[in-house]
Amino acid sequence: MTEPLTTGATIGILGGGQLGRMLSVAASRLGFKTCVFEPGGDCPASHVSNFHFKAAYDDEEALRRFAKAVDVVTYEFENIPTAALDLIESLVPVRPGREALRVSQDRLTEKDFLSGLGLTTAPYAAVTTQEDLEAAIEKIGLPAILKTRRFGYDGKGQARIMQAGDAAAALEDMAGQEAILEGFVDFSHEVSVIGARSAWGDVACFDPGGNVHEGGILRTTTVPARLSTAQRTDAVLMAGKILNALDYVGVMGVELFVTPQGLVVNEIAPRVHNSGHWTQQGCTVDQFEQHIRAVAGWPLGDGSRYADVVMENLIGEDMEKVPGIAEERDASLHLYGKADVKPGRKMGHVNRIIRQG
Amino acid sequence: MTEPLTTGATIGILGGGQLGRMLSVAASRLGFKTCVFEPGGDCPASHVSNFHFKAAYDDEEALRRFAKAVDVVTYEFENIPTAALDLIESLVPVRPGREALRVSQDRLTEKDFLSGLGLTTAPYAAVTTQEDLEAAIEKIGLPAILKTRRFGYDGKGQARIMQAGDAAAALEDMAGQEAILEGFVDFSHEVSVIGARSAWGDVACFDPGGNVHEGGILRTTTVPARLSTAQRTDAVLMAGKILNALDYVGVMGVELFVTPQGLVVNEIAPRVHNSGHWTQQGCTVDQFEQHIRAVAGWPLGDGSRYADVVMENLIGEDMEKVPGIAEERDASLHLYGKADVKPGRKMGHVNRIIRQG
Repeated sequence: MTEPLTTGATIGILGGGQLGRMLSVAASRLGFKTCVFEPGGDCPASHVSNFHFKAAYDDEEALRRFAKAVDVVTYEFENIPTAALDLIESLVPVRPGREALRVSQDRLTEKDFLSGLGLTTAPYAAVTTQEDLEAAIEKIGLPAILKTRRFGYDGKGQARIMQAGDAAAALEDMAGQEAILEGFVDFSHEVSVIGARSAWGDVACFDPGGNVHEGGILRTTTVPARLSTAQRTDAVLMAGKILNALDYVGVMGVELFVTPQGLVVNEIAPRVHNSGHWTQQGCTVDQFEQHIRAVAGWPLGDGSRYADVVMENLIGEDMEKVPGIAEERDASLHLYGKADVKPGRKMGHVNRIIRQG
Repeated sequence: MTEPLTTGATIGILGGGQLGRMLSVAASRLGFKTCVFEPGGDCPASHVSNFHFKAAYDDEEALRRFAKAVDVVTYEFENIPTAALDLIESLVPVRPGREALRVSQDRLTEKDFLSGLGLTTAPYAAVTTQEDLEAAIEKIGLPAILKTRRFGYDGKGQARIMQAGDAAAALEDMAGQEAILEGFVDFSHEVSVIGARSAWGDVACFDPGGNVHEGGILRTTTVPARLSTAQRTDAVLMAGKILNALDYVGVMGVELFVTPQGLVVNEIAPRVHNSGHWTQQGCTVDQFEQHIRAVAGWPLGDGSRYADVVMENLIGEDMEKVPGIAEERDASLHLYGKADVKPGRKMGHVNRIIRQG
């Protein structure tokens, strides 16, 4: 795939959640059709896509038909089974490429990759056995946090170790999965950079946003973030370094801790990111369109910001606030069309424009 | 239908063009599903809707199934066959209501309605026969413009009469359809107000935009429009008067001529309007979401403007400009996914943010 896709081309999206939904809408703005592959039935992305393959990730026949129905494939989550990707990739280009997935699917590989680029991460050590854990605590100190190497998100698969006595229970929480012990970073706040890289290596980053988490789940992102000009530049350069090293095509979320000694990379996500939802109101080209542009072989769009925005996630029972938000001034509501409200489930978000003066 | 619709409810849309497409996307933002009724096959709205009834407007069985599949029905164009509406309305609420359609489907009825409200329109007279036309020219003077009373859009069904000798040919152009002769208004420019009215009578108007037409087709809309504060207030009050008189629910486009003697109503459109596309970039709630909010029984959103915008339509061969626009700063591109480029066909639009200073 060397030519940019044009009106009528079809973009395949693996995963049918809210990120796939907003990617699909962005694709439609550029005249593309979308085809979503998602085992679940009435999924958010299927409401706004042309086609929905409702099939399992090990259904080879469905994967093959999906790959043949589309011009390029992208994804909304990083934990796609390897066998499914092997099959799809034999039939149609996948963007971002495999290297980004390989690195980001495993917290240990990711930390090794980032350290290898000369970037600072939290201190870390691989943990499989009780002995590993003891050695890791010895090296890193406490408090620390034990995480499964794979398949964790929104605080799942994590256990804090505040004192030595917590270690055994934390290891048990890993249920035999390979893990990584991470030291705490003494940071003042967290920011994230939503970076993008085109098929020919141009890089563009959105203005960094300041994140606030609660219970391991992103609560708000605010732009502009509290950063000095030097920190802002650093953040963008770090994101660019990561994107280039992976020969990345698409949008990536890079979470950074702000410390007195400089920025520390928390984690990277090879996809559009919750902390980039504010771009829907503050920029002419949002993160979803930016990703679709890169994947479709288009030039990156102008992601410069023309408004101050606070994004707030609507999680679980926050849905009860919707009637009130609907009456707010300067508030843009985005609901994901999920039928069931569950605790901790991301149901939507609201972008509030903050006017000057 | 007295309760506001909630996540998972389905909004039916008659017509599957670009307006239906953008209505469908807006509905998804509020968590709604959409079902499009459109005789054409690969229509723009079907790309981003849950369901597409591909059937003719006289297919009663399809209309019945459509009406039963949705919670409320709206439309993207005003020339919906009456029999189809009768059938749908017997099964499910239709918003905006029939009165707005009755008035706006017929240029003569529309002018009578507007005059009845005390608003100024171009001088006009009904024309069916040669004698009517002569009397009308006598009354109104020349130049004037002869238009079919029904089914005209984008300059179609219109013939200019510059001098008495043009009259016979103009009448022939009407092909026997009932017509209306309209005098020319000596205006400096045209503006339009995109007004909205909720199910319980709240009214909200977007900032008026200044329109430039070419060959009878809208070319650009610019906000803010060149209007004095008094004119701006007048424009909004006039739109409010029209919305209230029709007990209207939804978004309406009101085109106004600016003259030294005051504002003259050119025409009204009982739907989202091309001259309101700028709201996608300049407001937290755009005209499409505003319409969906009204139709769904939600409160109107805050349509106040936080950016200056110029909207430019991409018509026919303008599609060749797309690669260049894709690289522009501060430009937001909206393509409609239409497979075939035809002269005069609206293929997309671009909203350009104009920064201060």
